[in-house]
Amino acid sequence: MGELSTLFAPERVAVVGASNEEGTVGYAITKNLRDDFDGTVVPVNPNRDSVLGVDCYESVGAAVAIDVAIVVVPPPIAVGVVREAAEAGIKDIVVITAGFSEAGSEGSERERELVELAEEYDLNLVGPNSLGIMSTAVGLNATFGPRSGTPGDISFMSQSGAFITAVLDWAADRDIGFKDVVSLGNKAVLGESDFAREWGEDDGTDVILGYLEDIGDGQSFIQTAREVTQETPIVAVKSGRTEAGASAAASHTGAIAGSDAAYEAGLDQAGVLRVETVQQLFDFASILSGQPLPDTDGVAIISNAGGPGVMATDAVGDSELRLADFSDETLDRLQDFLPSEANIYNPVDIIGDAPIGRFEEAIDIVLDDDNVGMAIVLSCPTATLSFEELADVTINLQEKHETPIAATLMGGSSTETAAQRLSEAGIPNYFDPDRAVSSLEALSRYAEISSREHTKPTTFDIDRDRIQEILTSAAESGRTQLGVESMELLDACGIETPHASVVDNPRDAQDLAADIEGEVVMKIVSPDITHKSDIGGVEVGVTTDEVPDTYEDLVVRARNYQPDANILGVQVQEMVDLDSGTETIVGVTRDPQFGPLVMFGLGGIFVEIMEDTSFRVAPVTEDDSREMVDEVQSSPLLYGARGREPADVDAIVETIQRISQLVTEFPAITELDMNPVVATPDGATAIDFRLTLDAEAVQTQEES
Amino acid sequence: MGELSTLFAPERVAVVGASNEEGTVGYAITKNLRDDFDGTVVPVNPNRDSVLGVDCYESVGAAVAIDVAIVVVPPPIAVGVVREAAEAGIKDIVVITAGFSEAGSEGSERERELVELAEEYDLNLVGPNSLGIMSTAVGLNATFGPRSGTPGDISFMSQSGAFITAVLDWAADRDIGFKDVVSLGNKAVLGESDFAREWGEDDGTDVILGYLEDIGDGQSFIQTAREVTQETPIVAVKSGRTEAGASAAASHTGAIAGSDAAYEAGLDQAGVLRVETVQQLFDFASILSGQPLPDTDGVAIISNAGGPGVMATDAVGDSELRLADFSDETLDRLQDFLPSEANIYNPVDIIGDAPIGRFEEAIDIVLDDDNVGMAIVLSCPTATLSFEELADVTINLQEKHETPIAATLMGGSSTETAAQRLSEAGIPNYFDPDRAVSSLEALSRYAEISSREHTKPTTFDIDRDRIQEILTSAAESGRTQLGVESMELLDACGIETPHASVVDNPRDAQDLAADIEGEVVMKIVSPDITHKSDIGGVEVGVTTDEVPDTYEDLVVRARNYQPDANILGVQVQEMVDLDSGTETIVGVTRDPQFGPLVMFGLGGIFVEIMEDTSFRVAPVTEDDSREMVDEVQSSPLLYGARGREPADVDAIVETIQRISQLVTEFPAITELDMNPVVATPDGATAIDFRLTLDAEAVQTQEES
Repeated sequence: MGELSTLFAPERVAVVGASNEEGTVGYAITKNLRDDFDGTVVPVNPNRDSVLGVDCYESVGAAVAIDVAIVVVPPPIAVGVVREAAEAGIKDIVVITAGFSEAGSEGSERERELVELAEEYDLNLVGPNSLGIMSTAVGLNATFGPRSGTPGDISFMSQSGAFITAVLDWAADRDIGFKDVVSLGNKAVLGESDFAREWGEDDGTDVILGYLEDIGDGQSFIQTAREVTQETPIVAVKSGRTEAGASAAASHTGAIAGSDAAYEAGLDQAGVLRVETVQQLFDFASILSGQPLPDTDGVAIISNAGGPGVMATDAVGDSELRLADFSDETLDRLQDFLPSEANIYNPVDIIGDAPIGRFEEAIDIVLDDDNVGMAIVLSCPTATLSFEELADVTINLQEKHETPIAATLMGGSSTETAAQRLSEAGIPNYFDPDRAVSSLEALSRYAEISSREHTKPTTFDIDRDRIQEILTSAAESGRTQLGVESMELLDACGIETPHASVVDNPRDAQDLAADIEGEVVMKIVSPDITHKSDIGGVEVGVTTDEVPDTYEDLVVRARNYQPDANILGVQVQEMVDLDSGTETIVGVTRDPQFGPLVMFGLGGIFVEIMEDTSFRVAPVTEDDSREMVDEVQSSPLLYGARGREPADVDAIVETIQRISQLVTEFPAITELDMNPVVATPDGATAIDFRLTLDAEAVQTQEES
Repeated sequence: MGELSTLFAPERVAVVGASNEEGTVGYAITKNLRDDFDGTVVPVNPNRDSVLGVDCYESVGAAVAIDVAIVVVPPPIAVGVVREAAEAGIKDIVVITAGFSEAGSEGSERERELVELAEEYDLNLVGPNSLGIMSTAVGLNATFGPRSGTPGDISFMSQSGAFITAVLDWAADRDIGFKDVVSLGNKAVLGESDFAREWGEDDGTDVILGYLEDIGDGQSFIQTAREVTQETPIVAVKSGRTEAGASAAASHTGAIAGSDAAYEAGLDQAGVLRVETVQQLFDFASILSGQPLPDTDGVAIISNAGGPGVMATDAVGDSELRLADFSDETLDRLQDFLPSEANIYNPVDIIGDAPIGRFEEAIDIVLDDDNVGMAIVLSCPTATLSFEELADVTINLQEKHETPIAATLMGGSSTETAAQRLSEAGIPNYFDPDRAVSSLEALSRYAEISSREHTKPTTFDIDRDRIQEILTSAAESGRTQLGVESMELLDACGIETPHASVVDNPRDAQDLAADIEGEVVMKIVSPDITHKSDIGGVEVGVTTDEVPDTYEDLVVRARNYQPDANILGVQVQEMVDLDSGTETIVGVTRDPQFGPLVMFGLGGIFVEIMEDTSFRVAPVTEDDSREMVDEVQSSPLLYGARGREPADVDAIVETIQRISQLVTEFPAITELDMNPVVATPDGATAIDFRLTLDAEAVQTQEES
């Protein structure tokens, strides 16, 4: 039982603002409650003696032993009502009333008061601006929507009330049942993490679904969802994926959604199965709630129709699943009894004249094979087979073998009874083979998620004092953009950099070059010049003799470009042999919801033109970091493709982790870009870098 | 009226093999015909006096004035029956009987006889191994399937009979109507091109749908479909897309499908809208049959629900469509009457309390805007609105503005009546916003397809005699692999190559190098050594003095690698400055269905590791060729990305066209690979090439 168990299983519910007037929210909620609620409905309205025939209280404070208060009063008095309820000891409050942060500054002030109240009284507060909540286990429909959910094992949270009404209406014809439903509203107090945690602990909830437009605190959501998804799958639509969608979402709820790259990474790290349509949301929910998890990712297809069998096979080919290879024994057994026109290989085609017995035996044999982790039973309408019989056979064999099955009965109303029977036995049925395959893929992904071991990120021994010193000194001198002059920061972080220093006169430059030996790279150092190469501010392959003249040239070019540029000097750097290495990029941005987001990709063309990048929310573990490298499509270049010598991938993996640790420990770093980090067979060396600082945050951090 | 008009609108249909025995195919077809056919059913069976109460003829030859003969007799006598029908003057014959090419060598021989007969008598023969045909216009159901189609304007061909039974069953509950349906069977005579042509000329058909596992003659299909799709859209599932799917399809129908790259390119060049699911097939069909084509690709979304509006916006962001920018006038008009909480920008959110009047005015204003080419009317269930009223308003405004609309009424049974009304008015309704958007995208793509101008490929003045000579000489000497020694062939084709020759001694090599001036590239030339670089068979940057020694080195390395290699000499080639150019690849493979398939991509990494390639079936036009270049994701590198000097894209475009012409005119060339073709600011030069020859075809071509 979670902290919110009373919210979803109250005995006495007060409707503050209950009304007799049809068409009002206060009427709709009271009526919905009165119609089905197992407990007691307590209307509160100072201007009425009774509402819908039930005696009315004058105030929520006057009502007795209320578990949950539903607040539907006008905005100006809503906060007062919540205070009164809180003072009366009510902990669980649902604020239906709109006109808060979604409605300008006055509303935002009102919402701030609500949050303060909730903190003061430790309230479980839903909303404001919520459609309400439901719990079918106790007949609770405390929403003003037109329809209740059918009882079932899916719990559903939504940041759009309209989406709930649409989904309930749609689900009603489809054997889809719900446990709890909550309209999150403005999420002033309770948000997605709270309900995920609650339903993770709720025995009545098998699957958690969500429609989300933003996630308030990404880091905390990742932590919560990771724990929850060990036991209970979470499937969610996160809308506002595209630029246009995000801006529409912002205008809709006032939510400032971060980048979709952060959501994509964050939801994946959290173990949430992300979907894009309502259809997928429930396709996944039905298989996750009804079927066991697969032992292996091999899929068997047993079909009485060649064409649709091919479509299912295509869908498997597009997915991360694979067609199971049957054992010789399985093939022998199939060969023995199937007619010669049949196909005994996967996808098994038992052909159109198959009677039920042939289907039964084929399924039984195939499910006996240890290489088969999941199965699709696919049938078109034929004269020799009834869908109902096929459903019964499928149910029995699924129970016998405990292998997850997705049925694909391809037809319309003639499949209805069969689909119903399957559904009652927890076997989902899909019309299109590709929906069956995506659903099995989701089941297989969830099997992987629920068995994930969440290792801790490695903590490297970095020189924190030195890093803080560099940041503080920059902040104090008003610099928020750091460049090559501060590459020492990377050294302090344990990241390899070329031998280099910044000098402020030609003679020191030459001495330094002599120390380094061989040719050097020289770069102008100025916080005012970010794109050094573009203005001729970088010279490569400079011999020791040429160093003094080059020094002067670089300074002249910088002055010509920007006469008042603050020139800190020239960096003289050891030449790294780029030809023997592969250029990679490691970068960090800070997402408003998820915090530091680490990016990896191969040199400029791959990142900029091919958009071949991978992202993780920091802190990243060693596994995360290695996945980031392996995920980019260009990674074979690091592993020795096309006759290259393989790069030291371990060094890149460690570099990513060290950067992740740096930005996690130093929140004052708002952006960081190491471009390139050259990966050679012997290591990974950061050649250039840029860093953006939040000067105020540096101060705070130092003080803390 | 097309050539197959009698097939789909006969007056007298004979069922040869009609039967009284329930459960037989001869019974099912006769019964289906007798139940609904407007014309006369003529059963033929020598062993019966009557079938289903209708007098029987002894033979098809004895029956009088038969328009179409349906053949359901056993395989051994099927060919004889077809001959008898043909001799009796029947042109249109549907062979239901199975046991032909799908069933081993005896069957294949039988099918060959059928094809010969069809040629001799000029028969319109469907099948064999077909479920049959339907035409709802005359109540014709000459299939043994359990269900007829509802009348409508979709004509449908399928290479899987089971798929037809599934689709008809499914469509029956969904207001989806059909004109003609044909089960293609083995396509021994009539195939996809024939029915596409027929239905393109049929006034009763608005949309042509197909389920295809292969396309017999790709080139002829492209020609036919291009013409048809000027007037009538074709939407098709082409299954066997993936490797696993293709191999399953091969085992199912015996069809050897070519590469999916060829299908993808060929179907696109043909103007066919390719889909992957049954849902999409009918989603697209319903909008294409009911809605006008858009003038512009700007989409307006008008919604009473913020969240689903965001989902629709995301879907637009993922598509090739864009959200329409409203004019100032539209924004002013919306602002004037919408409540302040509404969003007047696209997606327009008229909020949940919107009555029908607000919806009506908002839709009307938005459709008035010339920037709006298409609209999505989206509604969730609310207390203030009836879906039926919204349907009526939408229908009226669609008629008034003639702007295509996709409705998205998000609900279950409560939307049924409204959806029905919309459907009758030709407006499709989708539950998930993303289905509405994909369907509008299909409509927009079809608008582009139907207005395509099919220009002829340019014919360049190439030296055909010289090319033939090179091919013949190679074929005569038994060489089927040509390499750098034959680069003259590219010269003859008008493709730029570096100054180069093949010499067979060190002295000639040095003389040649002296002629060329500057450093040269030297390559071993041997038909036995295909990967020259791997064995040290290529030396770059050789000075004139070094040429003789390098010659010897190359020969020694080749001998070490393969002592008996046939060494033709060494190629001495002008050095092309690779640094100033971008390496591209132009290749050709020959697809069993579509013929020559031209590939373009950027240098090795992009093609091999990033799989960044584009394909077209030859012959390609200038537009095709330019699209091939622009389609690859790496193309910005040719246009000057990242500070490069832009390459001469026109030269690449011409090179692709010349290669297309070469392989079209010389079918003996089965494969060709120019890798790299270096694109510089001044042209495109092929540095290396390989070509595979069909020696027999060379002979034939020369004789012709």
